[in-house]
Amino acid sequence: MASSMLVVTAHVGDFVWRCGGAMALHAQRGVDVHLVCLSYGENGESNSAWGDDTARDDVKAQRRAEAEAAADILGVSSLDFHDLGDYPMPESADSVRRISETLRRTRASVVLTHPEHDPSNLDHCRTFEMTLRARMQAMAPGHGADFVVPPQVLCFEPHQTELCGFRPNVLLDITQVWDRKWAAMQAMPTQRNLWAYYERVALQRGAQAGRRGKTGGARYGEAFQSIFPAVVSALME
Amino acid sequence: MASSMLVVTAHVGDFVWRCGGAMALHAQRGVDVHLVCLSYGENGESNSAWGDDTARDDVKAQRRAEAEAAADILGVSSLDFHDLGDYPMPESADSVRRISETLRRTRASVVLTHPEHDPSNLDHCRTFEMTLRARMQAMAPGHGADFVVPPQVLCFEPHQTELCGFRPNVLLDITQVWDRKWAAMQAMPTQRNLWAYYERVALQRGAQAGRRGKTGGARYGEAFQSIFPAVVSALME
Amino acid sequence: MASSMLVVTAHVGDFVWRCGGAMALHAQRGVDVHLVCLSYGENGESNSAWGDDTARDDVKAQRRAEAEAAADILGVSSLDFHDLGDYPMPESADSVRRISETLRRTRASVVLTHPEHDPSNLDHCRTFEMTLRARMQAMAPGHGADFVVPPQVLCFEPHQTELCGFRPNVLLDITQVWDRKWAAMQAMPTQRNLWAYYERVALQRGAQAGRRGKTGGARYGEAFQSIFPAVVSALME
Amino acid sequence: MASSMLVVTAHVGDFVWRCGGAMALHAQRGVDVHLVCLSYGENGESNSAWGDDTARDDVKAQRRAEAEAAADILGVSSLDFHDLGDYPMPESADSVRRISETLRRTRASVVLTHPEHDPSNLDHCRTFEMTLRARMQAMAPGHGADFVVPPQVLCFEPHQTELCGFRPNVLLDITQVWDRKWAAMQAMPTQRNLWAYYERVALQRGAQAGRRGKTGGARYGEAFQSIFPAVVSALME
Amino acid sequence: MASSMLVVTAHVGDFVWRCGGAMALHAQRGVDVHLVCLSYGENGESNSAWGDDTARDDVKAQRRAEAEAAADILGVSSLDFHDLGDYPMPESADSVRRISETLRRTRASVVLTHPEHDPSNLDHCRTFEMTLRARMQAMAPGHGADFVVPPQVLCFEPHQTELCGFRPNVLLDITQVWDRKWAAMQAMPTQRNLWAYYERVALQRGAQAGRRGKTGGARYGEAFQSIFPAVVSALME
Amino acid sequence: MASSMLVVTAHVGDFVWRCGGAMALHAQRGVDVHLVCLSYGENGESNSAWGDDTARDDVKAQRRAEAEAAADILGVSSLDFHDLGDYPMPESADSVRRISETLRRTRASVVLTHPEHDPSNLDHCRTFEMTLRARMQAMAPGHGADFVVPPQVLCFEPHQTELCGFRPNVLLDITQVWDRKWAAMQAMPTQRNLWAYYERVALQRGAQAGRRGKTGGARYGEAFQSIFPAVVSALME
Repeated sequence: MASSMLVVTAHVGDFVWRCGGAMALHAQRGVDVHLVCLSYGENGESNSAWGDDTARDDVKAQRRAEAEAAADILGVSSLDFHDLGDYPMPESADSVRRISETLRRTRASVVLTHPEHDPSNLDHCRTFEMTLRARMQAMAPGHGADFVVPPQVLCFEPHQTELCGFRPNVLLDITQVWDRKWAAMQAMPTQRNLWAYYERVALQRGAQAGRRGKTGGARYGEAFQSIFPAVVSALME
Repeated sequence: MASSMLVVTAHVGDFVWRCGGAMALHAQRGVDVHLVCLSYGENGESNSAWGDDTARDDVKAQRRAEAEAAADILGVSSLDFHDLGDYPMPESADSVRRISETLRRTRASVVLTHPEHDPSNLDHCRTFEMTLRARMQAMAPGHGADFVVPPQVLCFEPHQTELCGFRPNVLLDITQVWDRKWAAMQAMPTQRNLWAYYERVALQRGAQAGRRGKTGGARYGEAFQSIFPAVVSALME
Repeated sequence: MASSMLVVTAHVGDFVWRCGGAMALHAQRGVDVHLVCLSYGENGESNSAWGDDTARDDVKAQRRAEAEAAADILGVSSLDFHDLGDYPMPESADSVRRISETLRRTRASVVLTHPEHDPSNLDHCRTFEMTLRARMQAMAPGHGADFVVPPQVLCFEPHQTELCGFRPNVLLDITQVWDRKWAAMQAMPTQRNLWAYYERVALQRGAQAGRRGKTGGARYGEAFQSIFPAVVSALME
Repeated sequence: MASSMLVVTAHVGDFVWRCGGAMALHAQRGVDVHLVCLSYGENGESNSAWGDDTARDDVKAQRRAEAEAAADILGVSSLDFHDLGDYPMPESADSVRRISETLRRTRASVVLTHPEHDPSNLDHCRTFEMTLRARMQAMAPGHGADFVVPPQVLCFEPHQTELCGFRPNVLLDITQVWDRKWAAMQAMPTQRNLWAYYERVALQRGAQAGRRGKTGGARYGEAFQSIFPAVVSALME
Repeated sequence: MASSMLVVTAHVGDFVWRCGGAMALHAQRGVDVHLVCLSYGENGESNSAWGDDTARDDVKAQRRAEAEAAADILGVSSLDFHDLGDYPMPESADSVRRISETLRRTRASVVLTHPEHDPSNLDHCRTFEMTLRARMQAMAPGHGADFVVPPQVLCFEPHQTELCGFRPNVLLDITQVWDRKWAAMQAMPTQRNLWAYYERVALQRGAQAGRRGKTGGARYGEAFQSIFPAVVSALME
Repeated sequence: MASSMLVVTAHVGDFVWRCGGAMALHAQRGVDVHLVCLSYGENGESNSAWGDDTARDDVKAQRRAEAEAAADILGVSSLDFHDLGDYPMPESADSVRRISETLRRTRASVVLTHPEHDPSNLDHCRTFEMTLRARMQAMAPGHGADFVVPPQVLCFEPHQTELCGFRPNVLLDITQVWDRKWAAMQAMPTQRNLWAYYERVALQRGAQAGRRGKTGGARYGEAFQSIFPAVVSALME
């Protein structure tokens, strides 16, 4: 494995709960894992950080530090904060261009991001759409001769899957890096209310994977939904 | 690759047009490819075989011979004809049991069959449903201690994809076995009216695969839709 | 217009409420309109006919007489009762064959029937499925040299459209035959509870049609959903 | 609350994992909760019960005893075993009639059963369909003057929700009866492999409910999807 | 009932036709009903108001007066006009913020608005999206300590339900306030062309509700589709 | 046929591959065919035009010349370039207004444009949305007394149909103008890589149409999906 992977999230916490296992697993195998966080999630996903006179900049700094610590644990190669603001996040042609430049620079062959629909969190939808737009910009020769082969896009798991019409077609066994993911989760104390929830998500996906996997040994898992058909040279591993 | 593959089709011709490339490709690599044809397609998919006084048994014999020849070209290991009749095909608990026994005997880890919906051809829907029922029967200890780990099910391409709600998520590069598939198609002269159509299907899927594949070299392809999430240990090859 | 039309319904009343306008309109223009009623609707759609000691055969005779009267008003050419029973209606290979023979005999180029889904009335789903199966049987040379070009299938409006996932793509202006349809409705006194409901349905579809039609003159309408793509020689009338 | 509730499941274990909380909660409030198990799940959902020379009747007896114990804990009023067999379960007009008679006798205003789709378990789909057919039979005057107002149908949660297209629109807070549900689960030692899985399901649904509920106090929950629109007299409690 | 309800519509007329019954019913029971109209509908939904030299401001004033009269009849507590313009309506971050402030101020536990899709009227889609975005903003602590528990969102009925993919799961009996709704409709003479249409809509929804309701007494109804699962403490009233 | 048709595309090449046959066919019959190209496709769909020091304006000029030549071959009456830029294309209220003015001026009764969804090309989605918004603006009296009866919208075929959820319900026989379409394709040498691909698309749609058409003579076809129900005066030609 010599390629690289790009992760694009709306808020700083998302990458840990939703694809921290995938990130750790691939980093461990030598894949360069690049991360873009479009906002710090300071408004809507940092509830415990807000006190009586809390300054916005302090919340942002605190979340940024947590994201850096978690990314470090997962083995991330580069980390880019766009600081677009959240709840709601505005559309940004500038961010689209910036993600497209990251795609050109990193030559990522797979991009992990939010699924298309989420009525409870339109920042996630916007991130999906901006990522797809960036993918177009990255593959267009008119924006530079370093255009890329369009990467696969895999959507990671939202908070309430059925509400988002999420239909996973890939279950990834993350058992061997679970300790990494768990450590990264704990590097995000501002959202400690989510620790147990996402430990259970990982156990459920592990149980589903273990039931049908070859070895039966999966204990922890993550679920993904591919947007584009996978191009393969065999139907069985 | 040491596992085996099972193909279940409604009519004798289906395996050639829809997954002949996948069969040849895996057979070539040492996978045992097993084939079940639920009917000879004598009523509705043998139009040119019917003349003024044609006997039904003659049409069936002719189609059986063609299927055997095509299967031979593709490298099929075993071939089972259920002779259920077609247009329409009846539901058959006996066939479900027989497919389940084939699954137990062959230990196939992937099953190729028709997609769930097809308003123009309900034999295809029935085949899908009987295959899923057989999968249940094969994994139940109450039907014998040789029960199996439930295999993946991949639906191959129907005649009019959009009419069937077919949404492929896998494109297989069959360029290197195209000559085999083409030869198998020509071993089915009763349906020569489909040769050019399915050559074009293969070229379109090849073009779609080539556009995003690593090597860009795909010229012929086949499309599949997975029913169950793939259980994987990495998100990139 | 020299072709013919086939209508297949689950219960005797259905053809009046759901496509009586289409039937009258085409009959008036010289199209032969053939009707198949798979049951008399005696169990579940004849509520007012059941008294303390009512005999089943009397209910069936009463509904049959109503259907004959309504069909006559609409200009129906032939009327076939299969008497399968209802609530629930059993699957019947014999009825499938019989519908296929009607298709071969009438050479109908369009078939009107119930939509695919209806959780409140599975007799409707079964009728849809049996009609599609009959269509296959009618086009298969193995069942006789008089096989047909497969007809279009148009689903008419169910009682609660959204519950059935009904998505009409055709609105038919039935203003000029509304008096026929209304007379046919009144020939079904057993279901007089539906008269006002289906008058309003016709007015709503008329309003929707009138809003976008060329003449703006539609006052009464009926809605249909096509199952197969229409094959046309122009995109505008 | 003076009405009654009917639960129809494919296999004996289903009612515990999927709606044991709803059953206990309503029984506790004086609702008569009736249960129909179409099979003992002896073939496909009793894996640990099968040894070298196990007799089928012993497995069935064991599962029946477990179901009776669990039903007793949950406060079930009546329990009916149809013994149709499983993996796969056959369609049965007799069972449809029998469920319809249960509906007439119990006057249940809500029915809990499996969702419509489940490619990994077609017994569940068949149960859904048979239940809807029984609902029709129960509301038809032609089958007896004791016909019923058609009840609401709520589908409970399948094993892999997204695979089944399950879209819950109701989250039930079962916190106060969780100990009952947990006890009923433990009365099913044959399927002890599911205990932790369904404890986590309950915790996830509880977390989702607690997030939006009025009191915020939900710790355990169950999810349901209604088939028919709810008829209400207010949009807020 | 001590909570409050918020209604957000694209054009001034929408609240009357689509949820006037719900508004009157809840207002009558002491719920504070707040209304936001994002535009006056002056361009596309005031056809009869435009004459040869009509001034835009006159049309807007006329529609505003009608809306105020209708809102008064329905018992509305507060009414806010955003005057964004229509056909098409622009996206407005300012309106999103303003709706979020209304949510914080009113503590509404349910929001009524347009459904997500409507190819004939993208102002409705935009209103849905802006409302969901406002809901996010209202629940985010970073926008103020008075953040809210996220309310349920119920979509009301569009003009052509099937075109919009509208799938109602709630039918509200509005019989007892029908005279209020009818009076409010007549307070909007500019759109008198819709009176009969929406009287029929109410009668159809009433008929559907009456068929399954407890009392059978519903004569007029309104239909809604919930976006988020309802959190309940019982499955039966 | 005396009406007119409007075609709105994202990039200059789209009209040739996707609806060149429909354009030629209707132009030949005296329909005025108007064309709007929102961009030159200079960034993402002119790959072969970009060399080492190519100037953007040269690429745009080259594509404009090709579009003019192809439009001329197809018999286009008017051609409007909006030059919005591509990969990605920005939303433009000004373009929406301009398309709406074209609709008012041309009185087009049918509009051909891209389908709603395309994850690989969001310029197509944006074009669809802008076209629907323009349709609203064109039918609103508040934007001028020359408002129009809202036209039908037909979506033409995208590059990968299933990826876009494209469900065609109209197949147009373009056999008699195929030579025109082929000539127009060859007037676009910058995209010669698409010639064979779209010749095969036309042959596949022709084969599908021929199978069910009256004459059986279709050799080339184009597929369309209608957005609004067709308002008709008969269900058969």
